[in-house]
This record gives sequence, C-alpha cells and structure tokens, in this order.
Amino acid sequence: MADIMRMLKVNLRDRSYPIHLGEGLLCRIGELLKQAGCGEKVGIITDPTVARLYLEPVEEALSQWGFRVTPVLVPTGEEHKNLKSLSAIYDRLISERFERNSSLIAFGGGVIGDLAGFAAATFLRGISYVQVPTTLLAQVDSSVGGKTGINHEQGKNLIGAFYQPRLVLIDVAVLHSLPRRELLAGLAEVIKYGVIESSELFALLEQKLDQFLALDKEIVVEAVAASCAIKARVVEKDEREEDYRSILNFGHTIGHALESVTGYEEFLHGEAVAIGMAQAASISVHEGFCDEESLRRICRLITRAGLLTEIPPHIQPRELVQRMEVDKKSTGGKIKFVLCGGIGTTYFRWFSATEIAAKLAARRR
Amino acid sequence: MADIMRMLKVNLRDRSYPIHLGEGLLCRIGELLKQAGCGEKVGIITDPTVARLYLEPVEEALSQWGFRVTPVLVPTGEEHKNLKSLSAIYDRLISERFERNSSLIAFGGGVIGDLAGFAAATFLRGISYVQVPTTLLAQVDSSVGGKTGINHEQGKNLIGAFYQPRLVLIDVAVLHSLPRRELLAGLAEVIKYGVIESSELFALLEQKLDQFLALDKEIVVEAVAASCAIKARVVEKDEREEDYRSILNFGHTIGHALESVTGYEEFLHGEAVAIGMAQAASISVHEGFCDEESLRRICRLITRAGLLTEIPPHIQPRELVQRMEVDKKSTGGKIKFVLCGGIGTTYFRWFSATEIAAKLAARRR
Repeated sequence: MADIMRMLKVNLRDRSYPIHLGEGLLCRIGELLKQAGCGEKVGIITDPTVARLYLEPVEEALSQWGFRVTPVLVPTGEEHKNLKSLSAIYDRLISERFERNSSLIAFGGGVIGDLAGFAAATFLRGISYVQVPTTLLAQVDSSVGGKTGINHEQGKNLIGAFYQPRLVLIDVAVLHSLPRRELLAGLAEVIKYGVIESSELFALLEQKLDQFLALDKEIVVEAVAASCAIKARVVEKDEREEDYRSILNFGHTIGHALESVTGYEEFLHGEAVAIGMAQAASISVHEGFCDEESLRRICRLITRAGLLTEIPPHIQPRELVQRMEVDKKSTGGKIKFVLCGGIGTTYFRWFSATEIAAKLAARRR
Repeated sequence: MADIMRMLKVNLRDRSYPIHLGEGLLCRIGELLKQAGCGEKVGIITDPTVARLYLEPVEEALSQWGFRVTPVLVPTGEEHKNLKSLSAIYDRLISERFERNSSLIAFGGGVIGDLAGFAAATFLRGISYVQVPTTLLAQVDSSVGGKTGINHEQGKNLIGAFYQPRLVLIDVAVLHSLPRRELLAGLAEVIKYGVIESSELFALLEQKLDQFLALDKEIVVEAVAASCAIKARVVEKDEREEDYRSILNFGHTIGHALESVTGYEEFLHGEAVAIGMAQAASISVHEGFCDEESLRRICRLITRAGLLTEIPPHIQPRELVQRMEVDKKSTGGKIKFVLCGGIGTTYFRWFSATEIAAKLAARRR
C-alpha cells in the first residue's frame, strides 16, 4: 500500500506542533505520542459512536508503546459540550490519579475536541493533549489552532481557552464511516478556506468535487492538507484572534445565529455556515466588495455539495439579531463581519447585529 | 503625605505586567486601568467583607475614569472557590454582555484572586484581569504569577490555568482592616521567601518583626516588595512550573496535606504552611542538607510570628499520605519535595508520600 502521508507544522514558538495527515495513521498513534514525549497515563475522551468503531485498535496501538489508557466516554452531541460533561471528565481524571505529565486524546468530532481540549487546558492548570479528529469538520477546522471550550445556555463556546495540542493526527480513512450528511457539512469549511484564502483550493473543489465525495484518497488528502495549511498560517499570524484570525469567521456570524435560533437542532454547524457564507457573499456583492461571478461560483459549489444557500423561509432575519449580539466577537456593540472580495480575498467591516439583519432581509425581497 | 511607592515588573514577553505597590493606591485604580488599556466594562469580583469596606471608593475611582462597573459578590471562604461560584460569575458576565475587551478586577484575598483569574482565563477564551489583593497572603503570593483555579472535592486547585493579570495593584493600607490572624498567616509566606531565596529579607524580618506587625508603612512596603520581587523572578524563570517554580512550594506539600486532612477548617493556609516549613526544615537537617542554626532561626521566627511549628498531636503523619498523593505536583507516584539548605538556599528531592510521612513521624519521636 503506497501511503499518502503529509506532515505540516503549526509554528507558534514554544507551542509549535506537527499535523500528521494520511490514510491509515491511527495505528501509528502510540509511536507518535511517544515521540511527542507524552507520559504513561493517557485518557481517551471520545463518544460512544467513535468508541464502537475505533476505540479497540487505538487502545491496542497505545498499549503496544507502553501507555496506560483510560477511556472516558461522553454522550454524543453538542448539547453535552457543557460544564456537566467537563466536570465528569475532571472526576474521572482525578479518580485515575492523572498527573501533570499525563495526557488526553481528543478522539472524535468538534464537540469532543473542544471539550477534551478545554479539560486538558484546565486540569492541573494544563496537561498536554492530542487531537485525533474523526469528522471532516474537525479535521479541517477545530482540531488545528487551539480553540477549546464549552457552551453556555446563552451561547456557544462562551467558556473556553486558547490551548494548543501537542500534535494533531488526521487519519482520512475514518471518513468512510462518517454519515454522508456530516461529510457534506464538513465540506462547507473546506469551501470556506477556498473562498477566504485560496482560489487554487476553490478551483480544485470545483473540478474534483465528485472524487472528493467518493472519498478518493488523493483528493481528500490534498483538500484536507490545503485546508489545514491555511488554518495553520492564519493561526500563526494571530493565535488569540486579536485581529486577523477572525477571517476564519467568514459565514459564521450568520451561521452561528442560525444554529442558535433553531436550538442547534435543525442545522449541522457546516450546514448553517454554508448558508452564512452564501449570504455574506451576497451582502459583499451588494456592498460593492465582490463581483457577481464569484458569488455565482460560491453558491454553485455550495449547492453541488448538497448544502443550502438561503435562510429557510420560516426563519426571519430579525430573529437573528439577539443571537448575533451575544456573539463573542462583538465589541462595543459592533460585530466584526467578514466580507468576500472575490474568491481568495476578504475584507473586515464592523456592523451592528441590526444592520446585518436588515441586509439579510433586503437580500430576501 | 510622603507616599512610599514602588513599581516592579514581571517580565514574561507579551505577558509582562507591572506591580504597583504603595500606601493609598486604591484611589488610583481608574487611572491605572486606563493606562493598561482596559475596555469600558469592568467586573469587580469581590466578597461581602471587602465590598463593605472598600467597594464604594473603588467604584467611584473607576467611574471617574469612565469605566462602567459591575460588582459581582462571591460568598466569603475557600469552600466557595468552586464550579458553582465560577458558573455564577459566567452567568453574570453574560447577562451584562461582557465582551472581549471587558475586564475583571480580582478584589479580595487569594480565593477571590484565583476564582476571578480563572473566570477571566476562561470567559470568551480569555479576557484581561487585574489583581487587587486585600490580604497579606494574596499581596505577597497569589496575586503575582498567574496561577488561577478552583478547588475540586478531591483537592485544592485541581482545576485551573496559568493566566497572567494585566497589572497588580497592591495597597498596603488595606492591611489595617485585615484580622490579626490573617496578617500572621500571610507573614508565613513572607518568611518563606526569606528562607528560600533571601537571607536579607529573613534578617529584616528578624530585626523588624515588631514594626511589621504594627504595620509600620516603610517596613511593610519593603517586605512586601521584596517578596513580590522574589516571586516575580521565580515566575520569570519558570512561568508554568515545569521545574524551578516549585521552589515556591517549600512548606506546602505538608501544609496542603494538613489543610486537607482537617477539612480546611482548622488552619488558615499560611498557618499550615508555617508548620510545613518548620517540618521541612527539620527533615532537611536530618537529611544533612541544613545546619541546626538555620533550623533554629526558622522556628524562632515562625514562633515569634505567632505561628505553629509542630503538627498538632491529634493529627498522625500517616493520615497525610493520601492527601499528599493527590497533590498535583506528584509525578510517577513521587512528590517533588523542597528541602532547605540553610537560609536562602534550597534543594529538590523526590520522595513518595509514605516516605515523607515516615520522616515526619521520625521527627516526632
């Protein structure tokens, strides 16, 4: 088997770390953790679905390298990314006497990554952790960059920390067991990287979308690697999102509000972001930042990926106002909104939530 | 009034910050926060006692500089340094729409400092905060160095983060309202700095203890400044306690265990640390690291400060074993124990909790 392997690096001085990417990498996890200097005790934070499919071989691969593994299962779903699950993880780590040189593996999608990362950030004032993302969304987005956190009743990720992993291990083979709907939702974030930073990646997706959706190994590795590389470069420029990193928020101001107003039940994150991107691109055209052709290409690619571009009729833009206002990116009542200036180019503008809702309503008429 | 003012700096690259120290500084808090670039919304995390004494003038001093103040009261006591209080702070910040450029003031003793610091570290993935310590213990120890956290049923500070404040403001005038017992307990940490790093500070305390206890302004500022300067240098060398910073743990392995085994009800932190220091010094003599004369000086100064040097007879050393084992400084079952090599000198040795308990029992016979 000729493996396609990539190794990228996120350069953040003493917090730098590698991203290992390829097909069939899970079996190398023991070796990679050893290389990274992780101590004997390892907690695997995962959910029942991932555990059923992959926990056994991963435990085996770790045991072979002398690690003592404690699996900690968290119920599946965004609604469990909260203080209660976090507290349950703490309890388990304490009862297993985890120490400062112990580490955690975030083995699952974005929920698991954020939760396990935040547990690692705050247990004993910080132990090391490894991201092993099992969804496309987590592979191209949440596993890289050190954003960790949990939700509050009033909004997503309101509690959290910037805390970088020790390494990221991406095995694209696991995408074969990912439900189709989640694969498509994850694709929204890949499209986002193309729109904000890379006309090459965008063109690759336009040309090879069918191969990607058929999980052609080479295309998937290429697109995921390109996405991770963009994410890494952005994070290197602005680790704590003081300025430039908010470029990654393209499509997310509206997307987050859509998720929130529907109680996180109607849309997967990527599905809401797809609508948010199409709407943000449409606003960008209206404001004179973006050409019509780029908008058409963005909407066409989103549609081909099986995702929506319009806010469903039962949701009124004005309902989104309050949701956008609690968005933690707001400052002085204004939200830093990412506009598209054509494929590969972005602009920031400060709008109030009311202004954004009015623009959305105007697009709809 | 000829004010005695000191300005120290903690040098941690992009996380550097000043320590302003003097008598009557509280009234300058608005100006100092403005200088530090804090945004309009400021939350004051404090307890009812401090609020009753000092909240009004501090609110006034902040309002004069255009800050909008939200006081958040937390019940007094170590037992409230937990997830519940943290959660209550989050709720309040969210309902007041705190944003990324908002900041918190930790206005109180060590409990408030740790709790407010951890809230700041984890709200919106980190907002800035200012330490305004009102106990001697917090002024010389917990307010400097960025250790934040909360307790878990199984042990103190098991949940937390390293997160540096934007500035530290120490007004020694507030020590006049501090109960005598707390002043003496705080003094234990000042004595600790002398023992581990500075024979000059130790000698100053020996010579001027009575003036210090009478809160002679000059002596207090000198001793607090010397303590903060030592703490700052240690933190600069090893911010995340990977190695050298554990020197500050002198007297704390035994001290923490004593606090824990008595349910945090019998000893104030400094009172337990005083016993821990005397016992650690005694073990150091027995192990051949420390001379008898240094041990005598340490015990004499502790006693003159109205603190104990012996473990009370109703506590058996073996009861401390399990408490020491959950100490988060342990690695591979061994605890990094700080030994005294004479006033101003220390050594690290790795002992199991059982070994430490045996040494304590042997000292007792």
